[in-house]
Amino acid sequence: MNTVEKLTEIFKMFPGIGERQAKRFVYFLMSRNQGSLEELSNLLLQLKKETRQCNECFRFFSLKNETASTLCNICKDPNIDSSTLLIIERDSDLESIQKSGIYNGKYFVLGGLVPIVEKNTTKAIRLNDLKNKTKNENLKEIILAFSLSPQGDHTDFYLRNELKNITEEKNIKISSLGRGLSTGTELEYSDNDTIKHALQNRQ
Amino acid sequence: MNTVEKLTEIFKMFPGIGERQAKRFVYFLMSRNQGSLEELSNLLLQLKKETRQCNECFRFFSLKNETASTLCNICKDPNIDSSTLLIIERDSDLESIQKSGIYNGKYFVLGGLVPIVEKNTTKAIRLNDLKNKTKNENLKEIILAFSLSPQGDHTDFYLRNELKNITEEKNIKISSLGRGLSTGTELEYSDNDTIKHALQNRQ
Amino acid sequence: MNTVEKLTEIFKMFPGIGERQAKRFVYFLMSRNQGSLEELSNLLLQLKKETRQCNECFRFFSLKNETASTLCNICKDPNIDSSTLLIIERDSDLESIQKSGIYNGKYFVLGGLVPIVEKNTTKAIRLNDLKNKTKNENLKEIILAFSLSPQGDHTDFYLRNELKNITEEKNIKISSLGRGLSTGTELEYSDNDTIKHALQNRQ
Amino acid sequence: MNTVEKLTEIFKMFPGIGERQAKRFVYFLMSRNQGSLEELSNLLLQLKKETRQCNECFRFFSLKNETASTLCNICKDPNIDSSTLLIIERDSDLESIQKSGIYNGKYFVLGGLVPIVEKNTTKAIRLNDLKNKTKNENLKEIILAFSLSPQGDHTDFYLRNELKNITEEKNIKISSLGRGLSTGTELEYSDNDTIKHALQNRQ
Repeated sequence: MNTVEKLTEIFKMFPGIGERQAKRFVYFLMSRNQGSLEELSNLLLQLKKETRQCNECFRFFSLKNETASTLCNICKDPNIDSSTLLIIERDSDLESIQKSGIYNGKYFVLGGLVPIVEKNTTKAIRLNDLKNKTKNENLKEIILAFSLSPQGDHTDFYLRNELKNITEEKNIKISSLGRGLSTGTELEYSDNDTIKHALQNRQ
Repeated sequence: MNTVEKLTEIFKMFPGIGERQAKRFVYFLMSRNQGSLEELSNLLLQLKKETRQCNECFRFFSLKNETASTLCNICKDPNIDSSTLLIIERDSDLESIQKSGIYNGKYFVLGGLVPIVEKNTTKAIRLNDLKNKTKNENLKEIILAFSLSPQGDHTDFYLRNELKNITEEKNIKISSLGRGLSTGTELEYSDNDTIKHALQNRQ
Repeated sequence: MNTVEKLTEIFKMFPGIGERQAKRFVYFLMSRNQGSLEELSNLLLQLKKETRQCNECFRFFSLKNETASTLCNICKDPNIDSSTLLIIERDSDLESIQKSGIYNGKYFVLGGLVPIVEKNTTKAIRLNDLKNKTKNENLKEIILAFSLSPQGDHTDFYLRNELKNITEEKNIKISSLGRGLSTGTELEYSDNDTIKHALQNRQ
Repeated sequence: MNTVEKLTEIFKMFPGIGERQAKRFVYFLMSRNQGSLEELSNLLLQLKKETRQCNECFRFFSLKNETASTLCNICKDPNIDSSTLLIIERDSDLESIQKSGIYNGKYFVLGGLVPIVEKNTTKAIRLNDLKNKTKNENLKEIILAFSLSPQGDHTDFYLRNELKNITEEKNIKISSLGRGLSTGTELEYSDNDTIKHALQNRQ
């Protein structure tokens, strides 16, 4: 494979990118001047040096000046409510919740969802890290916050089961995101499940 | 206008039908035999005779044998919980909720939503009927069940205000359908409002 | 089945209408006043009386005053070029071409496309009428104007074969609609076939 | 701006990539190991060394062994018909046509389309290079092959005008890609322009 082909293969691994768009990326890059390519090339080398995965919540974060930090700005914020832990699948979910401005507790990036046909679940998600955290920290509530897909539901069910012993012993509440109508939902086109939850959670 | 043009105009008033599809309907009808057209023609004349609008909930229902009935099968069912009244915009919303099988109370078809720029609100919805019902019946809870659109939100707000005096005096609870993640919702693409409600309604 | 159910079944046969929309149509009709339903009912009975299928081109047309007419306004127009015959699948295709204002010849509504897995082809399309027309009229050109789908291509191929003997004997040209880029086509996303025809038909 | 922000800005310049997907790319890269990032970084530096813009047609091409080459494999192919020149907007259009396997002449990548509200047209496209080529080479036909958009039509019109003097003097034919039905086109939903061209180009 030549450089063009190798780059196409790499861009095809980018999230949401297929063969055709991967090729367009390479054409785009070929048309850029050498300086632009060098800048991008350097930034890629910088990325790992200037970012780190948080030791506590496992999200990726940019190091600012304090290059020695092993904790992200949320995890080391003393004003965060450290008794609540919200579990999300990935970094972008964390960002969505952070942006809503309503949650003030800790996060834990699970790193994936549990496959419905499980094999090697422990490789797909950070189960041991989560269990240790649940055991060793002073939690009052764990919030499971996954997308409402079959796999998200399965992960919710799976974690509740895996954490059961610890949370019962330590009296930690486990909750899941509330269900009901979401913005834009039309009643007429809602499925039974959504209507059921919307009725149960009426207020 | 000739018959073809008149029929096209009428089909254009059908919900969700534009000029092009209205025309296709007329072509379709022209290609049917005379017997089919007569059948459809007769059924249309039958429709009003065999259906009635319920005096209580204002939905349309098919008369079975008991041609004297002025109440639909839900409103005259003695096992229905008559202390709860669920307000919906239109018949098809009622059907969606009925299909979910979780609600066992009474219904009230509002007949529309309140326009955000109000004029003639009382013409758009059955406000007086609703007020009378709230005054005269023995209700414990009124559930507002509108689509999560700006107009749905506005109608919710408007009715809470209009019914306030009666419900406070008679100690009737007013609730709205619960909000949160609905089936298929992806966390990453959720708006702040949905995330906010999903967090508040976690359980 | 009661009237509501029967009407729902009939609307489900309308082109492009499914169960849900058929129901919405019935609800819509129930909410109309008796006068509107009677009007629609009468127009349906009128439809067959005021429209006729043209004896020449087989399209449906509205009778104006001249109730004795068996020919549509195109077929009896003396200024039409009667040496050219354009074959289309259905009435709505004829309308699209008529609207373009560029064709001045005769039409023939085939009444369907030839199924790729043929059986009873003669029932699906008006093959005998077309053959008779080709034999008995003074044609110089037959234009096959079908959608560019596998079934449209198959019908084109099938008719060329079926008409071959007559057209060769009578020296009638058979053509098909030109192929190439159509409005909005992006070169990058075009299939090989479209590019091939666009190159061959360049001008 | 830190590295994460800088990378997000760069990915936003990639064709078809918005803010949200640019961010997901950066998250994706953060989760890769250092080796993967170094590989991508190196390939970007290689890209300019291993690719070149062809001196004749201005497409980008991969250098194989013969590092001294200034011409792409098409331009230096002695079997190519050098009397025909096909003008396309960009490299990916050239690929589409090449893939169709039907064209055997030379190409010229214009580098853009002519803005309908023109200013600095000469900067948007390689007009001077094209004029020189038309003057100095032994051409029999120039094929304008642009997407069927208002800007593509405008570019077609603009180039015909700009090249008029040279092509008339040298007796070079100018043609444009043929128009008509393209694969998948349904007659009923075709615009007048497409039907007009399909009728004119029938065959």
